[in-house]
Amino acid sequence: VVQQVKVGFLGCGTVGSEAVRILRDRSDAIRRYTGVDLGVARVAVRDPGKDRDLPSDWLTTDAESVVADPEVAVVVELMGGLDPAGELVAAALRSGKPVVTANKELVSKRGGELLDLAEKANVDFLFEAAVGGGIPLIRPIAESLAGEDIRRVMGIVNGTTNYILTRMTEEGGSFDDILADAQRLGYAEADPSADVDGHDAAQKAAILASLAFGTRVHADDVFTEGIRGVSGEDIEMARRLGYVVKPLAVCEFVDGDEVSVRVHPAMLPDTHPLANVRLSMNAVFVEGTSAGEQMFYGAGAGGGPTAIAVVGDIVDAARNLVQGARGPHMSRPALHPVRDITRIDNEFYLRLEVVDRPGVLAALAGAFGDNGVSIKSLIQEGHGDDAEIVLVTHTCAESDMRETLVELASLDSVEEVAAVIRVLGEDE
Amino acid sequence: VVQQVKVGFLGCGTVGSEAVRILRDRSDAIRRYTGVDLGVARVAVRDPGKDRDLPSDWLTTDAESVVADPEVAVVVELMGGLDPAGELVAAALRSGKPVVTANKELVSKRGGELLDLAEKANVDFLFEAAVGGGIPLIRPIAESLAGEDIRRVMGIVNGTTNYILTRMTEEGGSFDDILADAQRLGYAEADPSADVDGHDAAQKAAILASLAFGTRVHADDVFTEGIRGVSGEDIEMARRLGYVVKPLAVCEFVDGDEVSVRVHPAMLPDTHPLANVRLSMNAVFVEGTSAGEQMFYGAGAGGGPTAIAVVGDIVDAARNLVQGARGPHMSRPALHPVRDITRIDNEFYLRLEVVDRPGVLAALAGAFGDNGVSIKSLIQEGHGDDAEIVLVTHTCAESDMRETLVELASLDSVEEVAAVIRVLGEDE
Repeated sequence: VVQQVKVGFLGCGTVGSEAVRILRDRSDAIRRYTGVDLGVARVAVRDPGKDRDLPSDWLTTDAESVVADPEVAVVVELMGGLDPAGELVAAALRSGKPVVTANKELVSKRGGELLDLAEKANVDFLFEAAVGGGIPLIRPIAESLAGEDIRRVMGIVNGTTNYILTRMTEEGGSFDDILADAQRLGYAEADPSADVDGHDAAQKAAILASLAFGTRVHADDVFTEGIRGVSGEDIEMARRLGYVVKPLAVCEFVDGDEVSVRVHPAMLPDTHPLANVRLSMNAVFVEGTSAGEQMFYGAGAGGGPTAIAVVGDIVDAARNLVQGARGPHMSRPALHPVRDITRIDNEFYLRLEVVDRPGVLAALAGAFGDNGVSIKSLIQEGHGDDAEIVLVTHTCAESDMRETLVELASLDSVEEVAAVIRVLGEDE
Repeated sequence: VVQQVKVGFLGCGTVGSEAVRILRDRSDAIRRYTGVDLGVARVAVRDPGKDRDLPSDWLTTDAESVVADPEVAVVVELMGGLDPAGELVAAALRSGKPVVTANKELVSKRGGELLDLAEKANVDFLFEAAVGGGIPLIRPIAESLAGEDIRRVMGIVNGTTNYILTRMTEEGGSFDDILADAQRLGYAEADPSADVDGHDAAQKAAILASLAFGTRVHADDVFTEGIRGVSGEDIEMARRLGYVVKPLAVCEFVDGDEVSVRVHPAMLPDTHPLANVRLSMNAVFVEGTSAGEQMFYGAGAGGGPTAIAVVGDIVDAARNLVQGARGPHMSRPALHPVRDITRIDNEFYLRLEVVDRPGVLAALAGAFGDNGVSIKSLIQEGHGDDAEIVLVTHTCAESDMRETLVELASLDSVEEVAAVIRVLGEDE
């Protein structure tokens, strides 16, 4: 006998309406295939007068009443933000109802507490849709790779910044021009800060790091640098050096007990699998000691893809609920400290505007040598006022690079440190 | 209270010993992270005298005794082949023990029956390791994409053939030379037939199609064409036309109720995400109506990667067992018929050795036109005895192409149809 499980939605925008549509249109396939009979009971919306293809008796503006409704067995939170979403999710979990959410801010800032509530109630708190849209990431990392010793996760997890950098790379435009065009075409928000300054990716990085290393990383602990400083000149120079500039979220297990979690633009070798991830596509590259390198690729946003992730989680939560079971997500984390960025090693790309006269190289070499940073390759370009030096260092600590930059800035022969971009993905 | 779950292994070669090592070395991390305390109880091996880093009281040559051992709660089958693996797996499931296997032959030939047994016993029959080594595929497709209307799955699921075709592409060598070198380096077996003739990939394709479309496809129902016929000349011509030749497994949902499942070399546009999957790496590309295009990439074979998939399944099976629950895999399939290859549409690449004289093109055009096949692009190459015509057709049915080939072979102006390769992955 297949038991019907009714779902209550908090919020019904693009993702919510698509998820409701899938639950209605594909209920037969889902029931046959997964053994769960899913239905929709209630939908909390801001404006019930808006034209929707939903029975009017499903709709309410009272989100709390959806959580409390005895008919609602699984709660799907798609409102976004911390408040009131956080309290509604907590209330649902406390009352023994599994929760599915796409809310990356909530998971990356209150995830630990909500997972504890879920564990106490022996129900699921699932958030596949919070990272990478429809790309299965959370379940593969938490379940399929449960035995893996994951060392590093590098992801392109923000479609807007990948779109902008891809177009800058392929068309040669400036950041401002491409951003404006992206806004016009709907690939970037009117206020682009959450994307281009890296906050969206930082929340996703916190979630990925928590999963990959069995720990709990808060979004505020993620070092975040946006892509506003990436110039067309550096992208072109990267191309000449065999690199591509990508907006990366990087999660690393470092020296036994600490993790590094950071978001910044980075140069990757143009042969790296992430280098071919174009426009608004997302991908997450996982490196582990047993399985080696793996990559998960797909659309990282949009109603359809995100709804697929939400529905997958609903099926999982409902199956577990019917069976009195619960998935394994992040039950007992190890709480690895997050290492400060100054103690993280990278290679660095630098572009320096220099005075065109003898002795410049010697002065530069001194600044690097003083701080124990060695230079891997160097190109001298232009003459007179346009003289530039572009170089890539060997791996060094961020703190040593920062000392080097201070010393470089103090040199008479250096007019400006025009660009500093981290270089990743080389074989060591 | 964490309950310990003891695992019994049937077979302990490369994959088995690595899985046992992971269960021993990472048991703390696995327990903390997933809430399951895993231990090894018994290991059935062919030669107990072989040097192994295992307690001798675990070892036995009697596989049946491992299945029957009351201490063994989860059975891991890594013997391969149908017999005796099939009967041992069936016996374990009948006695209410979940089974984890990496045995693609068993799953692709007796999977339906074994899944029925598992359902009857309310335990899991899991086989993540049977396709794509350590790449999470089964769980993402069956669970994360449970709501998706999957239209097509295209995979590079055999590392040996991808290795050979990649080296032929990058070095320009012949199939025979590269195969011999691959055998020397351990990338191909002494008897390479299972790989180069497509049988290994056909078994994996049957499993992928069954999962993706919620049906049951037997390995024998998969149309299979190996890569022995791919020449360096065609690979080079593909490159000039903007294609790469890849060993593909293709699973498609066609016209409402039927599926197509086939394994053959194919030309893909060099911009396709699968085109960059090099050497022995595997990847599976999934196309669905809501989530769009997704790709899963990683090492498709080897002890480490495959063991990771096995351990992920053990964790899942053990967690479910402790909770009296069961995963959703392929419970009630829809049994879509497999459409015969003759009724499947593709574009085709053809290379024809022709007589170098006027009127050849008109004769060719007639043969194509008679069978309703239209030509998309055509290149005439060489002179005299070396005259060749290379062309790519628009999409047409395999049966129409076969009729065309018969007619081409009968033409005086055609000396030989030197190559026929299907072309996939173009936007329609």
